[in-house]
Amino acid sequence: MIEFKSWEKRKRAAFINSLSGFKSCNLIGTKSVKGQENLAIFSSVFHLGADPALLGMISRPNVVPRDTLEYLKESGYYTINHVHHTFFEKAHQSSARYDKEMSEFEAVQLEKEYLNQFQAPFVKASPVKIAMRLREILPIKLNGCEMIIGEIDFVEVDPKAITDNGHLDLERLGVITTSGLDSYHQTKRIARLSYAKPDQWPKVID
Amino acid sequence: MIEFKSWEKRKRAAFINSLSGFKSCNLIGTKSVKGQENLAIFSSVFHLGADPALLGMISRPNVVPRDTLEYLKESGYYTINHVHHTFFEKAHQSSARYDKEMSEFEAVQLEKEYLNQFQAPFVKASPVKIAMRLREILPIKLNGCEMIIGEIDFVEVDPKAITDNGHLDLERLGVITTSGLDSYHQTKRIARLSYAKPDQWPKVID
Repeated sequence: MIEFKSWEKRKRAAFINSLSGFKSCNLIGTKSVKGQENLAIFSSVFHLGADPALLGMISRPNVVPRDTLEYLKESGYYTINHVHHTFFEKAHQSSARYDKEMSEFEAVQLEKEYLNQFQAPFVKASPVKIAMRLREILPIKLNGCEMIIGEIDFVEVDPKAITDNGHLDLERLGVITTSGLDSYHQTKRIARLSYAKPDQWPKVID
Repeated sequence: MIEFKSWEKRKRAAFINSLSGFKSCNLIGTKSVKGQENLAIFSSVFHLGADPALLGMISRPNVVPRDTLEYLKESGYYTINHVHHTFFEKAHQSSARYDKEMSEFEAVQLEKEYLNQFQAPFVKASPVKIAMRLREILPIKLNGCEMIIGEIDFVEVDPKAITDNGHLDLERLGVITTSGLDSYHQTKRIARLSYAKPDQWPKVID
């Protein structure tokens, strides 16, 4: 048994942050009503439902720069941009506490892009760009976090990375995964498996 | 722009399930008050906070076997067991709709284990075993999902996989990640990066 409850705060945080497993690695783009652009790395985006197409993410009061939350609340829009292995250092650097009037797009040298008249900026180099419309913010009273729920407005991705059955091949697109507070990983597919049924063992489908 | 809104239901589900990025891959162990054991694969476990040590996960009404939710609600306890690459097929197979009185531990041939008098069963072969106490269930009205929030009671993991600063090396432990509905991946670390500060570029720390 690991005695993490007696560890000092930072060590405990690094450990507990590792325990959920591998995480998604995304850059969230927002723009304030006054026109200030913001970019921040999140590792808490998760699937919530396919119809309506909903994604959730967690905003932690003490950790995440509050600009993202402020701008997406006031504008109602944000973008989710998957991190490619060629720019993981820039993505990580976006978590530094820059001055409010500094755009992280400029600070970390990731080119922004506006698509289809959508209000919030995308990361041009990202292989998966998702336009999100804010639907609901659920407070988590246990620790003051907020769960941000958005609906997918549109997706920009190379159609060649989508298989016939709709699966998107993130690995082929060079999307990475993250673990703990600071570890970045590429992936190597073991297999895709057929839909599980009680009377037969799954087959490798790819 | 990908026209997923006009796709048939299954293809749309496969695509949207891929969009959040790489996901955690866990087996959730529960036991009903009457003694029935259950095991189910989840890819939605996420970090919520380090102190109190909270993990969240999403229960989807139409997808996940309801036994897990029923048993953890009635008992108040569950286990989170990370999936090792040697048993990903068994983990996947746990999602088949077995009869209620069938234990998935037996059906997929994963040995169970009870630790420290904890009420719910663990997966013996899992390299990261987390004992969870249910704290809260938040309904998500937009689509009928529920967010299950639990507090970590104790963790069993090889202490050699924990670095000095508390980071747990999941890759070294053989833990895998998943994407979409059916794709399993091993990882290959690119780097760990130092804490980001505005006035300097992050350093590789491992």
